[in-house]
Amino acid sequence: MRLILAVGTTRTAAIEGISAAGADPDLLVHTPSADAEIVEYGEPVRAPVVPVSPAGCPTPAVVTRAVRDLVEFDVTAVDAGLAEPTGAPTVTVGASPGRDIREQDPVPTAPGAFAAARQFGRALPDDEVYLGESIPGGTTTALGVQRALGEPGIVSSSLPDNPLDRKREVVDEALAASDLKPGDAAGDPARALRRMGDPVLAVLSGIVAGCVESDTAVTLAGGTQLATVAALVRHTGYEGPLDLATTSFVADDDSVDLDALAAELNLSVTVTDPGFAGRDHPAFEAYAAGEAKEGVGMGGALALAEYAGVPMAEVRERVRERCGTLPTDGAAN
Amino acid sequence: MRLILAVGTTRTAAIEGISAAGADPDLLVHTPSADAEIVEYGEPVRAPVVPVSPAGCPTPAVVTRAVRDLVEFDVTAVDAGLAEPTGAPTVTVGASPGRDIREQDPVPTAPGAFAAARQFGRALPDDEVYLGESIPGGTTTALGVQRALGEPGIVSSSLPDNPLDRKREVVDEALAASDLKPGDAAGDPARALRRMGDPVLAVLSGIVAGCVESDTAVTLAGGTQLATVAALVRHTGYEGPLDLATTSFVADDDSVDLDALAAELNLSVTVTDPGFAGRDHPAFEAYAAGEAKEGVGMGGALALAEYAGVPMAEVRERVRERCGTLPTDGAAN
Repeated sequence: MRLILAVGTTRTAAIEGISAAGADPDLLVHTPSADAEIVEYGEPVRAPVVPVSPAGCPTPAVVTRAVRDLVEFDVTAVDAGLAEPTGAPTVTVGASPGRDIREQDPVPTAPGAFAAARQFGRALPDDEVYLGESIPGGTTTALGVQRALGEPGIVSSSLPDNPLDRKREVVDEALAASDLKPGDAAGDPARALRRMGDPVLAVLSGIVAGCVESDTAVTLAGGTQLATVAALVRHTGYEGPLDLATTSFVADDDSVDLDALAAELNLSVTVTDPGFAGRDHPAFEAYAAGEAKEGVGMGGALALAEYAGVPMAEVRERVRERCGTLPTDGAAN
Repeated sequence: MRLILAVGTTRTAAIEGISAAGADPDLLVHTPSADAEIVEYGEPVRAPVVPVSPAGCPTPAVVTRAVRDLVEFDVTAVDAGLAEPTGAPTVTVGASPGRDIREQDPVPTAPGAFAAARQFGRALPDDEVYLGESIPGGTTTALGVQRALGEPGIVSSSLPDNPLDRKREVVDEALAASDLKPGDAAGDPARALRRMGDPVLAVLSGIVAGCVESDTAVTLAGGTQLATVAALVRHTGYEGPLDLATTSFVADDDSVDLDALAAELNLSVTVTDPGFAGRDHPAFEAYAAGEAKEGVGMGGALALAEYAGVPMAEVRERVRERCGTLPTDGAAN
């Protein structure tokens, strides 16, 4: 089993009110670099920060890493447009940081990265892979892609109160800048990615396209961003099975009709509840209050723990220990 | 436990008669890219070749990967000057491919890569790391570095008959081109690396320097190239313990006085014999005849199998199986 993490950036994250994936907007850009390091090494080694939300919720990378301490699986990070250095090893597929989707051509590297990622996915000898993401601002670009494809436009948020109005405003501006109406990119995922998306969506949908061509079973490990990856793959014409494994925090998000999205995209969905609610630990309380919710393959990692028969109490204990070794003020190195 | 593999290239490998790390000189340059993929995925995914010696001996990466199937350890590859793309994830430390050491300034990125690798080594949270290499032509640059430092000049070869005269000739020319006499770079490892070395030696000695500063135990997993890494670290002034884990093929190499080299550098040496001699398999016969001998952390991986109580018969069985799934003609993809 291999968990593939696409880590990258979009300048869309810098728009006021969009993302919680980092306490300080100046540090947001380091989040995916740090997340890859936390999953690989257990802590940042080059990134100057441990990503935490404004309210102090530690990155889901800590949960994925905690599961990795208990369940054996390989992790392979793919550089899907990092803007800051990472000390984690990454696969190169030619992706660059995404620009603000309100620009006219925000992801010019999307078609090339999709193609290289597809070849990479096709060549992987694994029987089964899980795919996760880390990209601040990623639910806004996911909304943009869903609208360009003519899909429902259902996205979650790393904030307790999903700033959906703000996201819709941004996406409307972005559609206008690209001279697109909703549904104009139906059947043309490359166009949706390049005009309205981000490099992480391009890389992940490319890998899925390659994996399904070579009979590698894929589980989309995440929430509405990974569902958007499924949408992109559906618009390549693929009609076979697609699985999504996410957290109870996404499933319980009132702003997200996950069942409707799954039905629309013909996804089978696995929801895992790590039992954080009512536990006396700042990280657990923040998740239970609706912060972060997903990311860095967390929902898939929790599903893997469940399949392996690891009790969630053990996962929580490991998360506590992992949090204990990380700086709590968000600074690292 | 983490095995860190520095993978890179030097144009020194293109000198006639130097290296066996690939059947065809045009394919040599793909060897480290393919080796990283074989250890990560079990087979090449982007590199167009399975590295084999002119006589058909498969790369030691297959042995390291076979051990990894049986013993749990993390693998992190570092790009130490790759010249061709790899589908393996790699850490970036600013290394570029090395030029022919007969040029005047063959490794200009050595000081920067050493510094970045040192920081990386210092930041690693691991208690223990093993370090391996893949770089065709690497014993010739190792000889160059040893001579520049004033060390004995003891190096092995991936060929059954070590072309030592040819290597000495090349190193003499290289010393002259850099206006160095043997020993001129004593106490100045950066100078030895830049004028006579290769990017893999720069990265590995940097990582070791960082690890020993932060109490991460280091095992040099390899033969005379890794001993040369030890020499470089000794010339930074470090006098603490250093372990080397290599194969019986290096220990049995008549052209190498491993004991003398270990005594000179104050290394404790572990030698592991995988028991390939007398077994009816082309790969085992080639190793037993003195091909390849070491590389890609093989000696360290075998030591890890021994420590874990895995019988060498099981390692051999796994090598057979791994060889069986690889194309035998050297071509991949």
